[in-house]
Amino acid sequence: MSEFDEAITTTGPGDDGAYVGALTDEWGIGEAVNGGLLMALAARATGDASQRAGGHTDTLSFSGIFLSPSSPGQIHARPTVLRTGRSMSSAEVVVTQPVDGVDVERFRALLTLGDLDRYTDTPRKSVIPSPTAPLSECMSAGDAPPSLSQSGLLKRLDLRLDPATVGWAVGAPSGHGELRGWLRLQDDREPDALSLLLALDAFPPVVFDLGSQGWAPTIEFTGYVRARPAPGWLQVRTHTDHVAGGLFNEDCTVWDSTGALVAQSRQLGAARFPAT
Amino acid sequence: MSEFDEAITTTGPGDDGAYVGALTDEWGIGEAVNGGLLMALAARATGDASQRAGGHTDTLSFSGIFLSPSSPGQIHARPTVLRTGRSMSSAEVVVTQPVDGVDVERFRALLTLGDLDRYTDTPRKSVIPSPTAPLSECMSAGDAPPSLSQSGLLKRLDLRLDPATVGWAVGAPSGHGELRGWLRLQDDREPDALSLLLALDAFPPVVFDLGSQGWAPTIEFTGYVRARPAPGWLQVRTHTDHVAGGLFNEDCTVWDSTGALVAQSRQLGAARFPAT
Repeated sequence: MSEFDEAITTTGPGDDGAYVGALTDEWGIGEAVNGGLLMALAARATGDASQRAGGHTDTLSFSGIFLSPSSPGQIHARPTVLRTGRSMSSAEVVVTQPVDGVDVERFRALLTLGDLDRYTDTPRKSVIPSPTAPLSECMSAGDAPPSLSQSGLLKRLDLRLDPATVGWAVGAPSGHGELRGWLRLQDDREPDALSLLLALDAFPPVVFDLGSQGWAPTIEFTGYVRARPAPGWLQVRTHTDHVAGGLFNEDCTVWDSTGALVAQSRQLGAARFPAT
Repeated sequence: MSEFDEAITTTGPGDDGAYVGALTDEWGIGEAVNGGLLMALAARATGDASQRAGGHTDTLSFSGIFLSPSSPGQIHARPTVLRTGRSMSSAEVVVTQPVDGVDVERFRALLTLGDLDRYTDTPRKSVIPSPTAPLSECMSAGDAPPSLSQSGLLKRLDLRLDPATVGWAVGAPSGHGELRGWLRLQDDREPDALSLLLALDAFPPVVFDLGSQGWAPTIEFTGYVRARPAPGWLQVRTHTDHVAGGLFNEDCTVWDSTGALVAQSRQLGAARFPAT
Protein backbone atom coordinates (compact mmCIF):
# COMPACT_ATOMS: atom_id res chain seq x y z
CA MET A 1 0.00 0.00 0.00
CA SER A 2 1.28 3.47 -0.84
CA GLU A 3 2.29 5.92 1.87
CA PHE A 4 -0.64 8.14 0.90
CA ASP A 5 -3.25 5.37 1.01
CA GLU A 6 -1.90 4.20 4.35
CA ALA A 7 -2.10 7.73 5.74
CA ILE A 8 -5.75 8.22 4.77
CA THR A 9 -6.95 4.78 5.83
CA THR A 10 -9.45 4.69 8.66
CA THR A 11 -11.30 1.96 10.51
CA GLY A 12 -15.03 2.19 10.82
CA PRO A 13 -17.70 3.16 10.87
CA GLY A 14 -18.03 2.51 14.60
CA ASP A 15 -21.38 2.39 16.41
CA ASP A 16 -21.31 6.20 16.60
CA GLY A 17 -20.67 6.49 12.85
CA ALA A 18 -17.08 7.58 13.34
CA TYR A 19 -14.16 6.58 11.17
CA VAL A 20 -10.90 6.49 13.13
CA GLY A 21 -7.51 7.20 11.62
CA ALA A 22 -4.04 8.06 12.84
CA LEU A 23 -2.06 11.13 11.87
CA THR A 24 1.72 11.08 11.95
CA ASP A 25 4.28 13.83 11.49
CA GLU A 26 5.29 12.06 8.29
CA TRP A 27 2.77 14.38 6.60
CA GLY A 28 3.56 17.38 8.76
CA ILE A 29 4.50 20.79 7.52
CA GLY A 30 5.73 23.17 10.17
CA GLU A 31 3.88 22.16 13.32
CA ALA A 32 0.63 21.11 11.63
CA VAL A 33 -0.43 18.14 9.53
CA ASN A 34 -1.01 19.05 5.87
CA GLY A 35 -4.60 20.11 5.25
CA GLY A 36 -4.80 18.32 1.92
CA LEU A 37 -4.07 14.99 3.58
CA LEU A 38 -6.79 15.63 6.16
CA MET A 39 -9.28 16.50 3.44
CA ALA A 40 -8.44 13.31 1.51
CA LEU A 41 -8.90 11.26 4.69
CA ALA A 42 -12.26 12.92 5.40
CA ALA A 43 -13.41 12.58 1.78
CA ARG A 44 -12.53 8.90 1.73
CA ALA A 45 -14.49 8.20 4.93
CA THR A 46 -17.43 10.25 3.66
CA GLY A 47 -17.43 8.41 0.34
CA ASP A 48 -17.56 5.12 2.24
CA ALA A 49 -20.48 6.32 4.39
CA SER A 50 -22.29 7.57 1.29
CA GLN A 51 -21.81 4.25 -0.50
CA ARG A 52 -23.18 2.38 2.53
CA ALA A 53 -26.24 4.65 2.34
CA GLY A 54 -26.72 3.86 -1.36
CA GLY A 55 -25.09 7.10 -2.48
CA HIS A 56 -22.07 8.09 -4.54
CA THR A 57 -18.41 7.83 -3.58
CA ASP A 58 -16.39 10.30 -5.66
CA THR A 59 -15.94 13.77 -4.20
CA LEU A 60 -17.13 16.38 -6.71
CA SER A 61 -17.01 19.34 -4.32
CA PHE A 62 -15.45 19.70 -0.89
CA SER A 63 -16.03 22.89 1.14
CA GLY A 64 -14.39 23.03 4.52
CA ILE A 65 -13.78 25.50 7.33
CA PHE A 66 -10.79 24.98 9.57
CA LEU A 67 -11.25 25.56 13.28
CA SER A 68 -7.95 24.41 14.79
CA PRO A 69 -4.71 22.89 13.48
CA SER A 70 -4.45 19.09 13.49
CA SER A 71 -1.56 17.32 15.15
CA PRO A 72 -0.16 13.78 15.07
CA GLY A 73 -2.39 11.29 16.86
CA GLN A 74 -5.84 9.78 16.59
CA ILE A 75 -8.35 11.48 14.32
CA HIS A 76 -12.12 10.93 14.00
CA ALA A 77 -14.19 11.67 10.89
CA ARG A 78 -17.96 11.57 11.40
CA PRO A 79 -19.83 11.75 8.09
CA THR A 80 -23.56 12.42 7.82
CA VAL A 81 -25.20 11.59 4.50
CA LEU A 82 -27.76 14.32 3.83
CA ARG A 83 -29.23 13.16 0.56
CA THR A 84 -28.68 10.45 -2.03
CA GLY A 85 -29.88 11.44 -5.48
CA ARG A 86 -29.78 9.94 -8.95
CA SER A 87 -26.58 11.60 -10.09
CA MET A 88 -25.26 13.16 -6.89
CA SER A 89 -25.28 12.74 -3.14
CA SER A 90 -24.67 15.32 -0.42
CA ALA A 91 -22.93 14.86 2.90
CA GLU A 92 -21.30 16.62 5.79
CA VAL A 93 -18.28 15.47 7.75
CA VAL A 94 -17.04 16.68 11.14
CA VAL A 95 -13.42 15.92 11.97
CA THR A 96 -12.16 15.91 15.56
CA GLN A 97 -9.15 14.85 17.60
CA PRO A 98 -9.27 13.75 21.23
CA VAL A 99 -7.28 16.15 23.44
CA ASP A 100 -7.14 15.30 27.15
CA GLY A 101 -10.27 13.19 26.75
CA VAL A 102 -12.24 15.93 24.98
CA ASP A 103 -13.13 15.87 21.27
CA VAL A 104 -11.71 19.03 19.71
CA GLU A 105 -13.08 19.94 16.31
CA ARG A 106 -10.41 20.44 13.65
CA PHE A 107 -12.60 21.12 10.64
CA ARG A 108 -15.92 20.32 9.07
CA ALA A 109 -16.86 20.12 5.44
CA LEU A 110 -19.83 19.89 3.11
CA LEU A 111 -19.41 17.48 0.21
CA THR A 112 -21.16 16.79 -3.05
CA LEU A 113 -20.43 13.27 -4.23
CA GLY A 114 -20.96 11.70 -7.62
CA ASP A 115 -19.49 9.29 -10.12
CA LEU A 116 -16.59 10.81 -12.05
CA ASP A 117 -17.07 8.26 -14.81
CA ARG A 118 -20.12 10.30 -15.83
CA TYR A 119 -17.96 13.33 -16.60
CA THR A 120 -15.60 12.04 -19.24
CA ASP A 121 -16.79 13.83 -22.35
CA THR A 122 -14.67 16.42 -24.11
CA PRO A 123 -14.94 19.77 -22.30
CA ARG A 124 -16.92 22.51 -24.03
CA LYS A 125 -14.48 24.98 -22.60
CA SER A 126 -11.32 24.58 -20.58
CA VAL A 127 -8.09 26.32 -19.65
CA ILE A 128 -4.84 24.95 -20.97
CA PRO A 129 -1.92 24.44 -18.58
CA SER A 130 0.04 27.59 -17.76
CA PRO A 131 3.45 27.71 -19.48
CA THR A 132 5.79 26.14 -16.93
CA ALA A 133 9.50 25.35 -17.05
CA PRO A 134 10.23 21.69 -17.81
CA LEU A 135 10.80 19.40 -14.85
CA SER A 136 14.55 19.27 -15.41
CA GLU A 137 14.79 23.04 -14.90
CA CYS A 138 12.54 23.23 -11.82
CA MET A 139 13.61 23.51 -8.20
CA SER A 140 12.80 20.57 -5.96
CA ALA A 141 12.36 20.36 -2.21
CA GLY A 142 15.93 19.10 -2.00
CA ASP A 143 16.97 22.61 -2.96
CA ALA A 144 14.91 24.10 -0.09
CA PRO A 145 16.39 25.20 3.24
CA PRO A 146 16.63 22.26 5.69
CA SER A 147 13.87 23.73 7.88
CA LEU A 148 11.47 23.03 5.02
CA SER A 149 13.03 20.10 3.20
CA GLN A 150 13.11 18.09 6.44
CA SER A 151 9.36 18.41 6.93
CA GLY A 152 7.49 15.15 6.52
CA LEU A 153 5.27 16.45 3.75
CA LEU A 154 8.17 17.42 1.50
CA LYS A 155 9.68 13.95 1.86
CA ARG A 156 6.44 12.34 0.66
CA LEU A 157 5.90 14.69 -2.29
CA ASP A 158 8.09 15.26 -5.31
CA LEU A 159 7.27 18.95 -5.72
CA ARG A 160 9.05 20.98 -8.40
CA LEU A 161 8.69 24.73 -8.77
CA ASP A 162 9.31 26.83 -11.86
CA PRO A 163 12.47 28.88 -11.15
CA ALA A 164 10.52 32.03 -12.13
CA THR A 165 8.28 31.51 -9.10
CA VAL A 166 10.79 30.58 -6.38
CA GLY A 167 12.60 33.89 -5.89
CA TRP A 168 10.97 34.07 -2.46
CA ALA A 169 13.12 31.12 -1.30
CA VAL A 170 16.18 33.37 -1.60
CA GLY A 171 14.50 36.55 -0.35
CA ALA A 172 13.49 37.87 -3.78
CA PRO A 173 9.75 37.21 -4.28
CA SER A 174 8.54 38.05 -7.78
CA GLY A 175 5.61 40.08 -6.47
CA HIS A 176 3.23 38.48 -8.97
CA GLY A 177 1.44 36.27 -6.47
CA GLU A 178 1.73 33.11 -8.55
CA LEU A 179 3.40 29.69 -8.22
CA ARG A 180 3.74 27.12 -11.00
CA GLY A 181 5.17 23.66 -10.96
CA TRP A 182 4.81 19.93 -10.97
CA LEU A 183 3.79 17.35 -8.40
CA ARG A 184 3.75 13.66 -7.82
CA LEU A 185 3.91 11.33 -4.85
CA GLN A 186 7.48 10.39 -3.98
CA ASP A 187 6.65 6.66 -3.89
CA ASP A 188 5.28 6.84 -7.47
CA ARG A 189 1.70 6.16 -6.38
CA GLU A 190 -0.32 7.44 -9.34
CA PRO A 191 -2.82 10.29 -8.86
CA ASP A 192 -6.53 9.63 -8.45
CA ALA A 193 -9.61 11.57 -7.39
CA LEU A 194 -8.66 11.42 -3.70
CA SER A 195 -5.04 12.43 -4.13
CA LEU A 196 -6.19 15.49 -6.10
CA LEU A 197 -7.45 16.93 -2.80
CA LEU A 198 -3.89 16.61 -1.53
CA ALA A 199 -2.52 18.19 -4.72
CA LEU A 200 -4.82 21.21 -4.34
CA ASP A 201 -3.23 22.08 -1.00
CA ALA A 202 0.34 20.83 -1.43
CA PHE A 203 2.15 23.89 -2.72
CA PRO A 204 3.70 26.54 -0.46
CA PRO A 205 1.34 29.45 0.32
CA VAL A 206 1.04 31.60 -2.81
CA VAL A 207 1.62 34.73 -0.71
CA PHE A 208 5.28 33.66 -0.29
CA ASP A 209 5.59 35.07 -3.82
CA LEU A 210 4.50 38.43 -2.38
CA GLY A 211 6.95 38.40 0.52
CA SER A 212 4.85 36.71 3.19
CA GLN A 213 6.67 34.33 5.49
CA GLY A 214 5.75 31.55 7.87
CA TRP A 215 2.55 29.65 8.34
CA ALA A 216 -0.47 30.81 6.33
CA PRO A 217 -3.43 29.00 7.89
CA THR A 218 -6.41 28.07 5.73
CA ILE A 219 -9.67 29.61 6.91
CA GLU A 220 -11.93 28.19 4.21
CA PHE A 221 -11.14 25.78 1.37
CA THR A 222 -13.34 24.68 -1.49
CA GLY A 223 -12.09 22.16 -4.04
CA TYR A 224 -13.78 20.71 -7.12
CA VAL A 225 -12.63 17.43 -8.65
CA ARG A 226 -13.51 17.68 -12.34
CA ALA A 227 -12.11 14.42 -13.75
CA ARG A 228 -10.06 11.37 -12.86
CA PRO A 229 -6.42 12.18 -13.58
CA ALA A 230 -4.25 10.19 -16.02
CA PRO A 231 -1.12 8.57 -14.56
CA GLY A 232 2.01 10.69 -14.37
CA TRP A 233 3.00 14.12 -13.16
CA LEU A 234 0.38 16.69 -12.18
CA GLN A 235 0.88 20.27 -13.24
CA VAL A 236 -0.15 22.88 -10.68
CA ARG A 237 -0.71 26.63 -10.79
CA THR A 238 -1.70 28.76 -7.81
CA HIS A 239 -2.35 32.47 -7.83
CA THR A 240 -3.97 35.15 -5.72
CA ASP A 241 -6.18 38.02 -6.86
CA HIS A 242 -6.60 40.01 -3.68
CA VAL A 243 -4.44 40.33 -0.58
CA ALA A 244 -5.67 42.81 2.02
CA GLY A 245 -5.81 43.06 5.79
CA GLY A 246 -3.78 39.87 6.12
CA LEU A 247 -6.31 37.78 4.18
CA PHE A 248 -5.79 36.35 0.71
CA ASN A 249 -7.54 34.10 -1.77
CA GLU A 250 -5.47 31.32 -3.29
CA ASP A 251 -6.84 29.78 -6.46
CA CYS A 252 -5.30 26.47 -7.54
CA THR A 253 -5.69 24.64 -10.83
CA VAL A 254 -4.40 21.10 -11.41
CA TRP A 255 -3.88 19.48 -14.81
CA ASP A 256 -2.93 15.85 -15.41
CA SER A 257 -0.10 14.56 -17.62
CA THR A 258 -2.32 14.77 -20.72
CA GLY A 259 -2.95 18.47 -20.08
CA ALA A 260 -6.55 17.93 -18.95
CA LEU A 261 -7.87 20.18 -16.18
CA VAL A 262 -8.73 17.76 -13.37
CA ALA A 263 -9.20 19.87 -10.22
CA GLN A 264 -9.75 23.45 -9.06
CA SER A 265 -9.81 25.06 -5.67
CA ARG A 266 -10.02 28.39 -3.96
CA GLN A 267 -9.10 29.01 -0.38
CA LEU A 268 -9.19 31.97 1.97
CA GLY A 269 -6.02 32.15 4.01
CA ALA A 270 -4.39 34.40 6.57
CA ALA A 271 -0.85 35.63 5.98
CA ARG A 272 1.81 37.59 7.83
CA PHE A 273 4.09 40.01 6.09
CA PRO A 274 7.36 41.32 7.51
CA ALA A 275 7.21 44.98 8.58
CA THR A 276 8.57 47.21 5.83
CA MET B 1 -37.09 49.63 4.87
CA SER B 2 -35.69 48.59 1.49
CA GLU B 3 -37.19 45.70 -0.47
CA PHE B 4 -34.00 43.75 0.06
CA ASP B 5 -33.85 44.28 3.83
CA GLU B 6 -37.51 43.36 4.11
CA ALA B 7 -36.94 40.17 2.12
CA ILE B 8 -34.08 38.97 4.34
CA THR B 9 -35.69 39.91 7.66
CA THR B 10 -36.48 37.04 9.99
CA THR B 11 -38.02 36.72 13.42
CA GLY B 12 -36.16 34.80 16.07
CA PRO B 13 -34.38 33.05 17.39
CA GLY B 14 -37.21 30.84 18.64
CA ASP B 15 -36.81 28.31 21.44
CA ASP B 16 -35.40 25.85 18.91
CA GLY B 17 -32.85 28.42 17.70
CA ALA B 18 -34.66 28.93 14.40
CA TYR B 19 -35.03 32.22 12.59
CA VAL B 20 -38.24 32.35 10.54
CA GLY B 21 -38.64 34.34 7.36
CA ALA B 22 -40.99 34.46 4.40
CA LEU B 23 -40.02 34.02 0.76
CA THR B 24 -42.12 35.60 -1.96
CA ASP B 25 -41.96 35.27 -5.72
CA GLU B 26 -40.90 38.92 -5.78
CA TRP B 27 -37.34 37.55 -5.70
CA GLY B 28 -38.06 34.59 -7.94
CA ILE B 29 -36.22 33.69 -11.09
CA GLY B 30 -37.81 30.98 -13.17
CA GLU B 31 -39.58 28.75 -10.65
CA ALA B 32 -37.04 29.15 -7.84
CA VAL B 33 -36.20 31.92 -5.42
CA ASN B 34 -32.83 33.53 -6.14
CA GLY B 35 -30.02 31.78 -4.29
CA GLY B 36 -28.23 35.02 -3.46
CA LEU B 37 -31.24 36.29 -1.54
CA LEU B 38 -31.42 33.03 0.41
CA MET B 39 -27.75 33.24 1.27
CA ALA B 40 -28.11 36.83 2.47
CA LEU B 41 -31.08 35.81 4.65
CA ALA B 42 -29.12 32.90 6.12
CA ALA B 43 -25.99 35.01 6.65
CA ARG B 44 -27.98 37.71 8.42
CA ALA B 45 -29.58 35.19 10.81
CA THR B 46 -26.22 33.53 11.42
CA GLY B 47 -24.57 36.89 12.14
CA ASP B 48 -27.27 37.59 14.71
CA ALA B 49 -26.80 34.20 16.36
CA SER B 50 -23.04 34.71 16.40
CA GLN B 51 -23.37 38.14 17.99
CA ARG B 52 -25.66 36.72 20.70
CA ALA B 53 -22.96 34.13 21.40
CA GLY B 54 -20.30 36.87 21.72
CA GLY B 55 -18.97 36.30 18.20
CA HIS B 56 -18.65 38.33 15.02
CA THR B 57 -21.42 39.41 12.66
CA ASP B 58 -19.90 40.10 9.22
CA THR B 59 -19.74 37.17 6.82
CA LEU B 60 -16.17 36.71 5.59
CA SER B 61 -16.74 33.34 3.90
CA PHE B 62 -19.94 31.51 3.03
CA SER B 63 -19.77 27.94 1.67
CA GLY B 64 -23.06 26.31 0.87
CA ILE B 65 -24.40 23.18 -0.79
CA PHE B 66 -27.86 23.29 -2.30
CA LEU B 67 -30.10 20.27 -1.79
CA SER B 68 -33.44 21.39 -3.24
CA PRO B 69 -34.85 24.57 -4.82
CA SER B 70 -36.59 27.02 -2.49
CA SER B 71 -40.09 28.24 -3.20
CA PRO B 72 -42.28 31.06 -1.89
CA GLY B 73 -43.46 30.48 1.67
CA GLN B 74 -42.06 30.15 5.16
CA ILE B 75 -38.34 29.54 5.54
CA HIS B 76 -36.35 28.52 8.62
CA ALA B 77 -32.66 29.23 9.19
CA ARG B 78 -31.07 27.37 12.10
CA PRO B 79 -27.57 28.64 12.87
CA THR B 80 -25.10 26.84 15.12
CA VAL B 81 -22.15 28.85 16.37
CA LEU B 82 -19.14 26.52 16.34
CA ARG B 83 -16.45 28.79 17.71
CA THR B 84 -15.99 32.41 18.70
CA GLY B 85 -12.40 33.55 18.40
CA ARG B 86 -10.52 36.81 18.81
CA SER B 87 -10.69 37.91 15.19
CA MET B 88 -13.08 35.37 13.65
CA SER B 89 -16.01 33.17 14.52
CA SER B 90 -17.24 30.01 12.79
CA ALA B 91 -20.80 28.84 12.30
CA GLU B 92 -23.05 26.52 10.37
CA VAL B 93 -26.57 27.22 9.21
CA VAL B 94 -29.21 24.76 8.01
CA VAL B 95 -32.07 26.21 5.98
CA THR B 96 -35.36 24.37 5.59
CA GLN B 97 -38.91 24.94 4.38
CA PRO B 98 -41.98 23.17 5.75
CA VAL B 99 -43.65 21.07 3.03
CA ASP B 100 -46.81 19.20 4.07
CA GLY B 101 -45.73 19.44 7.68
CA VAL B 102 -42.25 18.09 7.05
CA ASP B 103 -39.07 20.19 7.19
CA VAL B 104 -37.34 19.88 3.83
CA GLU B 105 -33.72 20.99 3.73
CA ARG B 106 -32.97 23.57 1.02
CA PHE B 107 -29.32 24.22 1.74
CA ARG B 108 -26.75 24.35 4.47
CA ALA B 109 -23.65 26.47 4.74
CA LEU B 110 -20.46 26.90 6.73
CA LEU B 111 -19.58 30.49 7.57
CA THR B 112 -16.55 32.33 8.83
CA LEU B 113 -17.56 35.60 10.44
CA GLY B 114 -15.44 38.59 11.36
CA ASP B 115 -15.40 42.36 11.50
CA LEU B 116 -14.89 43.91 8.06
CA ASP B 117 -13.69 47.13 9.70
CA ARG B 118 -10.46 45.23 10.44
CA TYR B 119 -9.75 44.79 6.74
CA THR B 120 -9.62 48.34 5.46
CA ASP B 121 -5.94 48.77 4.68
CA THR B 122 -4.67 49.24 1.14
CA PRO B 123 -4.46 45.85 -0.60
CA ARG B 124 -0.98 44.45 -1.22
CA LYS B 125 -2.29 43.00 -4.44
CA SER B 126 -5.61 43.25 -6.17
CA VAL B 127 -7.27 42.91 -9.56
CA ILE B 128 -8.61 46.00 -11.26
CA PRO B 129 -12.12 45.98 -12.71
CA SER B 130 -12.44 44.31 -16.12
CA PRO B 131 -12.94 46.81 -18.96
CA THR B 132 -16.71 47.08 -19.25
CA ALA B 133 -18.91 49.23 -21.47
CA PRO B 134 -20.29 52.31 -19.70
CA LEU B 135 -23.74 52.02 -18.16
CA SER B 136 -25.35 54.04 -20.92
CA GLU B 137 -24.27 51.46 -23.51
CA CYS B 138 -25.26 48.38 -21.51
CA MET B 139 -28.38 46.25 -21.96
CA SER B 140 -30.83 46.26 -19.07
CA ALA B 141 -33.42 43.70 -18.03
CA GLY B 142 -36.03 45.83 -19.81
CA ASP B 143 -34.38 44.72 -23.05
CA ALA B 144 -34.76 41.05 -22.07
CA PRO B 145 -37.52 38.77 -23.37
CA PRO B 146 -40.69 39.07 -21.23
CA SER B 147 -40.23 35.54 -19.85
CA LEU B 148 -37.14 36.86 -18.06
CA SER B 149 -37.88 40.53 -17.53
CA GLN B 150 -41.15 39.66 -15.80
CA SER B 151 -39.38 37.58 -13.16
CA GLY B 152 -39.47 39.11 -9.71
CA LEU B 153 -35.71 39.20 -9.35
CA LEU B 154 -35.19 41.30 -12.45
CA LYS B 155 -37.72 43.85 -11.22
CA ARG B 156 -35.80 44.27 -7.97
CA LEU B 157 -32.36 44.56 -9.55
CA ASP B 158 -31.05 47.11 -11.99
CA LEU B 159 -28.76 44.77 -13.89
CA ARG B 160 -26.88 46.02 -16.95
CA LEU B 161 -24.83 43.80 -19.21
CA ASP B 162 -22.00 44.81 -21.52
CA PRO B 163 -23.32 44.39 -25.09
CA ALA B 164 -20.24 42.28 -25.91
CA THR B 165 -21.49 39.63 -23.45
CA VAL B 166 -25.22 39.47 -24.28
CA GLY B 167 -25.14 37.88 -27.71
CA TRP B 168 -26.71 34.79 -26.12
CA ALA B 169 -29.96 36.76 -25.58
CA VAL B 170 -30.39 36.85 -29.36
CA GLY B 171 -29.08 33.36 -30.05
CA ALA B 172 -25.47 34.36 -30.68
CA PRO B 173 -23.41 33.54 -27.56
CA SER B 174 -19.84 34.83 -27.77
CA GLY B 175 -18.38 31.47 -26.76
CA HIS B 176 -15.97 33.10 -24.34
CA GLY B 177 -17.80 32.08 -21.18
CA GLU B 178 -17.75 35.53 -19.63
CA LEU B 179 -20.33 38.13 -18.54
CA ARG B 180 -19.56 41.70 -17.50
CA GLY B 181 -21.80 44.44 -16.27
CA TRP B 182 -23.20 46.60 -13.52
CA LEU B 183 -25.61 46.06 -10.68
CA ARG B 184 -27.57 47.96 -8.12
CA LEU B 185 -30.82 47.49 -6.26
CA GLN B 186 -33.76 49.00 -8.11
CA ASP B 187 -34.95 50.89 -5.02
CA ASP B 188 -31.54 52.55 -4.67
CA ARG B 189 -30.74 50.76 -1.43
CA GLU B 190 -26.94 51.09 -1.24
CA PRO B 191 -24.77 47.95 -1.24
CA ASP B 192 -23.37 46.53 2.00
CA ALA B 193 -21.70 43.33 3.15
CA LEU B 194 -24.98 41.37 3.09
CA SER B 195 -26.15 42.56 -0.30
CA LEU B 196 -22.80 41.48 -1.78
CA LEU B 197 -23.95 37.87 -1.30
CA LEU B 198 -26.90 38.73 -3.53
CA ALA B 199 -24.63 40.44 -6.04
CA LEU B 200 -22.41 37.35 -6.29
CA ASP B 201 -25.33 35.27 -7.53
CA ALA B 202 -27.45 37.85 -9.40
CA PHE B 203 -26.16 37.57 -12.96
CA PRO B 204 -27.51 35.08 -15.49
CA PRO B 205 -25.61 31.77 -15.57
CA VAL B 206 -22.24 32.38 -17.25
CA VAL B 207 -22.78 29.30 -19.42
CA PHE B 208 -25.47 31.22 -21.35
CA ASP B 209 -22.46 32.82 -23.05
CA LEU B 210 -21.50 29.31 -24.24
CA GLY B 211 -24.95 28.45 -25.58
CA SER B 212 -26.51 26.85 -22.52
CA GLN B 213 -30.18 27.58 -21.94
CA GLY B 214 -32.61 27.33 -19.06
CA TRP B 215 -32.05 26.84 -15.38
CA ALA B 216 -28.49 26.18 -14.24
CA PRO B 217 -28.83 25.03 -10.63
CA THR B 218 -26.06 25.77 -8.15
CA ILE B 219 -24.55 22.66 -6.60
CA GLU B 220 -21.97 24.38 -4.41
CA PHE B 221 -21.31 28.07 -3.82
CA THR B 222 -18.50 29.72 -1.90
CA GLY B 223 -18.36 33.49 -1.54
CA TYR B 224 -15.81 35.70 0.20
CA VAL B 225 -16.69 39.24 1.29
CA ARG B 226 -13.41 41.15 1.22
CA ALA B 227 -14.50 44.70 2.14
CA ARG B 228 -17.53 46.88 2.78
CA PRO B 229 -18.58 48.39 -0.55
CA ALA B 230 -18.78 52.14 -1.18
CA PRO B 231 -22.21 53.51 -2.19
CA GLY B 232 -23.13 53.37 -5.87
CA TRP B 233 -23.07 50.87 -8.68
CA LEU B 234 -21.31 47.52 -8.31
CA GLN B 235 -19.28 46.22 -11.20
CA VAL B 236 -19.51 42.48 -11.79
CA ARG B 237 -17.56 39.99 -13.88
CA THR B 238 -18.31 36.29 -14.10
CA HIS B 239 -16.39 33.72 -16.08
CA THR B 240 -15.96 29.99 -16.34
CA ASP B 241 -12.73 28.03 -16.79
CA HIS B 242 -14.02 24.53 -17.32
CA VAL B 243 -17.30 23.18 -18.64
CA ALA B 244 -17.50 19.40 -18.97
CA GLY B 245 -20.09 16.69 -18.50
CA GLY B 246 -22.76 19.31 -17.83
CA LEU B 247 -20.88 20.82 -14.89
CA PHE B 248 -19.20 24.22 -14.83
CA ASN B 249 -17.41 26.52 -12.44
CA GLU B 250 -18.55 30.12 -12.34
CA ASP B 251 -16.15 32.60 -10.80
CA CYS B 252 -17.57 36.00 -9.90
CA THR B 253 -15.72 39.15 -8.90
CA VAL B 254 -17.49 42.27 -7.60
CA TRP B 255 -15.94 45.74 -7.42
CA ASP B 256 -17.53 48.78 -5.81
CA SER B 257 -17.97 52.24 -7.36
CA THR B 258 -14.42 53.23 -6.33
CA GLY B 259 -12.99 50.24 -8.23
CA ALA B 260 -12.14 48.31 -5.04
CA LEU B 261 -12.52 44.54 -5.16
CA VAL B 262 -15.15 43.80 -2.49
CA ALA B 263 -16.31 40.22 -3.07
CA GLN B 264 -15.37 37.00 -4.86
CA SER B 265 -17.16 33.74 -5.38
CA ARG B 266 -16.90 30.45 -7.17
CA GLN B 267 -19.75 28.09 -7.71
CA LEU B 268 -20.18 24.66 -9.26
CA GLY B 269 -23.30 24.55 -11.39
CA ALA B 270 -25.08 22.15 -13.69
CA ALA B 271 -25.99 23.27 -17.20
CA ARG B 272 -27.93 21.95 -20.16
CA PHE B 273 -26.85 22.56 -23.71
CA PRO B 274 -29.06 22.18 -26.77
CA ALA B 275 -28.22 19.13 -28.89
CA THR B 276 -25.95 20.14 -31.77
